[in-house]
Amino acid sequence: MKYFEDIRVGDKVVIGRHTFTADEIKSFAERFDPQPFHLDEAVAEQSHFGALCASGWHTVLIWMRLRIVEMRHEVEAQRTRGEPIAQLGPSPGFRELKWLEPVYAGDTITYASEVMDARPLDSRPGWGLVQYFNSGVNQTGNPVFSFIGSAFVERRPR
Amino acid sequence: MKYFEDIRVGDKVVIGRHTFTADEIKSFAERFDPQPFHLDEAVAEQSHFGALCASGWHTVLIWMRLRIVEMRHEVEAQRTRGEPIAQLGPSPGFRELKWLEPVYAGDTITYASEVMDARPLDSRPGWGLVQYFNSGVNQTGNPVFSFIGSAFVERRPR
Repeated sequence: MKYFEDIRVGDKVVIGRHTFTADEIKSFAERFDPQPFHLDEAVAEQSHFGALCASGWHTVLIWMRLRIVEMRHEVEAQRTRGEPIAQLGPSPGFRELKWLEPVYAGDTITYASEVMDARPLDSRPGWGLVQYFNSGVNQTGNPVFSFIGSAFVERRPR
Repeated sequence: MKYFEDIRVGDKVVIGRHTFTADEIKSFAERFDPQPFHLDEAVAEQSHFGALCASGWHTVLIWMRLRIVEMRHEVEAQRTRGEPIAQLGPSPGFRELKWLEPVYAGDTITYASEVMDARPLDSRPGWGLVQYFNSGVNQTGNPVFSFIGSAFVERRPR
């Protein structure tokens, strides 16, 4: 992880891609979002979605997994280069999660994270608060979700 | 589901309770949020959390599952009584998700949903938009998360 001082508004990283299969859509929905249009092709065809599609939470959780994996790679690369690694604080939450288009079985989503805002915290010396615009775009270029996440990021020791 | 006209600001329903085990915390984290303090007790004890705790996403997804199950029970009860059942539109998303306290292995969360706002939609005749304050509270009475959800709810046919 970068120190707060090395983070710039506008920095954008593509954190990965994921293709949603019908099986994983159903498996996720059975556990967490058992609505018929996430579980059964025939029912989904008759629904307002028109075909089997993933739970919106599922589409966002793949973002989460890819983000963690990408951060781990970044830390490993920093260790290899012998660089110091900044700490991240717990996430306070997120804002404005929008599900913009359905994610259908077979869709491939490209996930990204872009720095929207970064400011030092007077209330927490040694830390900054960074806001990220997180998003997923399908194979035809249409955004399928976005949300604004926040993270506490360590400032570079003086 | 109730029709829009039958929904009142202030209506609150406890949708269920859930106790988080260490095994399910780790299993969820492996798939979706593989951060060490959600995966390993010893690492978690050394982290800012102090003990193994659930991914914030996990705590919210149990809310989702309980909400769907509760809605299904409501629909079944309406069918039994021979009442008409309102349609729900797709969720446009969520706002202001806050993770307020960690959920540790063994914690029992009580999940609730309260109507914050309900207004007819000029842009979509036949539908209203309802805003819900959704939350989880642990066994000592402390809120662990909250968010504001929206749903399109069918208006009663004239």
